[in-house]
Amino acid sequence: MSTAVSPLAPTSVPDMPPVEGIRLATAQAGIRYKNRTDVLLAVFDKGTTVAGVFTRSKCPSAPVEWCRAKLKGGKVRALVVNSGNANAFTGKSGRASTALTAKIAAQAVGCSVNDIFLASTGVIGEPLDATKFDGVLLSLAQEAKEGRFLDAAKAIMTTDTFPKVATAEAKIGKTKVVISGIAKGAGMIAPDMATMLSFIFTDAPIAAPALQVLLRDGVVDTFNAVTIDGDTSTSDTLLAFATGAAAARGAPKITRASDPRLTAFRRALQTVLADLSEQVARDGEGARKLVEIKVEGATSKTSARRIAMSIANSPLVKTAIAGEDANWGRVVMAVGKAGEPADRDKLSIWFNGIRVAHKGARDPSYDEEKVSIAMKNPKIKLKVGLGLGKGKDRVLTCDLTKDYVAINGDYRS
Amino acid sequence: MSTAVSPLAPTSVPDMPPVEGIRLATAQAGIRYKNRTDVLLAVFDKGTTVAGVFTRSKCPSAPVEWCRAKLKGGKVRALVVNSGNANAFTGKSGRASTALTAKIAAQAVGCSVNDIFLASTGVIGEPLDATKFDGVLLSLAQEAKEGRFLDAAKAIMTTDTFPKVATAEAKIGKTKVVISGIAKGAGMIAPDMATMLSFIFTDAPIAAPALQVLLRDGVVDTFNAVTIDGDTSTSDTLLAFATGAAAARGAPKITRASDPRLTAFRRALQTVLADLSEQVARDGEGARKLVEIKVEGATSKTSARRIAMSIANSPLVKTAIAGEDANWGRVVMAVGKAGEPADRDKLSIWFNGIRVAHKGARDPSYDEEKVSIAMKNPKIKLKVGLGLGKGKDRVLTCDLTKDYVAINGDYRS
Repeated sequence: MSTAVSPLAPTSVPDMPPVEGIRLATAQAGIRYKNRTDVLLAVFDKGTTVAGVFTRSKCPSAPVEWCRAKLKGGKVRALVVNSGNANAFTGKSGRASTALTAKIAAQAVGCSVNDIFLASTGVIGEPLDATKFDGVLLSLAQEAKEGRFLDAAKAIMTTDTFPKVATAEAKIGKTKVVISGIAKGAGMIAPDMATMLSFIFTDAPIAAPALQVLLRDGVVDTFNAVTIDGDTSTSDTLLAFATGAAAARGAPKITRASDPRLTAFRRALQTVLADLSEQVARDGEGARKLVEIKVEGATSKTSARRIAMSIANSPLVKTAIAGEDANWGRVVMAVGKAGEPADRDKLSIWFNGIRVAHKGARDPSYDEEKVSIAMKNPKIKLKVGLGLGKGKDRVLTCDLTKDYVAINGDYRS
Repeated sequence: MSTAVSPLAPTSVPDMPPVEGIRLATAQAGIRYKNRTDVLLAVFDKGTTVAGVFTRSKCPSAPVEWCRAKLKGGKVRALVVNSGNANAFTGKSGRASTALTAKIAAQAVGCSVNDIFLASTGVIGEPLDATKFDGVLLSLAQEAKEGRFLDAAKAIMTTDTFPKVATAEAKIGKTKVVISGIAKGAGMIAPDMATMLSFIFTDAPIAAPALQVLLRDGVVDTFNAVTIDGDTSTSDTLLAFATGAAAARGAPKITRASDPRLTAFRRALQTVLADLSEQVARDGEGARKLVEIKVEGATSKTSARRIAMSIANSPLVKTAIAGEDANWGRVVMAVGKAGEPADRDKLSIWFNGIRVAHKGARDPSYDEEKVSIAMKNPKIKLKVGLGLGKGKDRVLTCDLTKDYVAINGDYRS
């Protein structure tokens, strides 16, 4: 496990205002880690709605299956998250483990097991001993308090080098509501859901079906546009919780995602999701460069996305960037292997605003020294112009360093 | 560039018998490298037929486009291969460069430019100065001799740490024919053609259309079943040349690939292609482990191939193997992300014959110490049983080490 904080970490942590109707607590349950918190309990007031999007893995973890099943009810009273063990690929014992965790949580909070949501992150394939939550969750339910988002973000970290939090405000009608979120990521980050775990909390009064649409739309250009290594976790989970507490202060109750009163809220949600997903990219395992890839002039947005992802997931492009080399030849390679419409002789490529290739060949005005200096920047903006149509897209990734190999060659043993 | 020979290199090099009707010569043309050969000329007797398969990149190199166009004629008199510069993404100058190289070669050999085939490998995006071949190719044509396959294999290397040759014999009718091949690979190896460059030479009398079918069928489970990093070269080229010289010794002329007299030849060709493609995997950049991935019990061979490739290209699986960790949880992850039918609770996984997971959970009899010892082997056999159907497949890859990152972070500069 890496201990040094990523050089790409945000330089400041925002003040995280409490969200009315949500109380948090963390503890050391001893799941795997020593001397750090590894379990988070979030307790929600009655009437809280929930929405979620999950990994598209064909082999999801037991907690993902649990959440999918419970999501149909649209309501929630508590969330339990543990780090250190993903409870994934644990067969019958995995299902028993989720059921027991939910039972302990339901007793602690005083609700039905159907109102409990679960997430686990860490090692895959090891049985999770849910009896470790016995007693712990009851204490947590008793001591849970509003706020504490940073503590919550710390408790769910695995190979993350810094906790990830973000917050924004918006008005629904004339009433101010808050949206605060936490995330953990770092490895196994790829679309179909980008981050392993992220949780969004708001006091806005939004019905579950509307919240689901907002979340589903919100991830397209945020969490689903981030990739670290192209690998997809069995546990990727993003849940959103809306307590509705702002209704008592006059916020109108929203039942449809198309409600025009949601415009500002939607924008604020997008800001939080974009902030958290960028932090995930900034904490990519071993990352030394944040890489933004913009593709323009594609035949469609979908085509631009596929080409951007092909570049973002190319080990040769990622190692070149780690080596501070503006190797646009490898970018061409990655465009070519995407299988999407591309005309070699119309391609243009920019690194941090400097055009290095134009119309299928090296840009004649390309100054290697200027580019070398630009490549030393910790943020690399790579732009590809295809010159075919109006489709464009943007994804975030990071470079591929020796540290990535070191972190992932030693993680389990 | 790496200088140490891969620890996975074959321990012996086969004797490479000459192939009648083919003469080879190599030289130092100074394209990029110092003090080593970097150009290969193969001269073929009149009547030699040719077949080829190429990268499926949408941005192929100029030589790939040249070969595709010339393949229609089905005949060949010379092949020119250079290393150090791929002549890819070089725009108009790339096309001019191929045309000039072909012109110089045609004059040297005394044939039409339409009978010249070309291949280039090395840096992408740098103009190739074809005038460097002027004089060189004439000398090579004059000194070309039968045999010399090992010298030829050396001249086409880039980041390869050892030259790759393979040979086999077969009878067509009652006449013995020989099949000898060379390859270079090491990076940007992925299906849609696996190796960057490979050339197969035979004295069998086989018409071009039949040779094309044999080659196309032959790559499916050989070169197209090898991946290093999932990246696909703009230059991947496999050409086969059949001089027909064995006809003078009584070999029947074959015009159809379905001709039953080709059974032994097809098998021998398969052996050569499999041998060369395995050598490519053994020379994966930074590789310390050869990894064979077998998937069984899939719903079809195609589905098994996709799952095997998902595992083979997963950075997390590859780094775990580099760390000698039998991390089957990551294998499950890679199965899950393939998008193919898979039932988590029916999955079984073996490392070097030891079953570590069974029916969706850790195998109860799994002895961690035995597995640890097995993982120290330079060849790792990873088998996945899906338990769904009869589809099965096999691919080869290698581990992902810090050396891969070092090699690819410094290659260009």
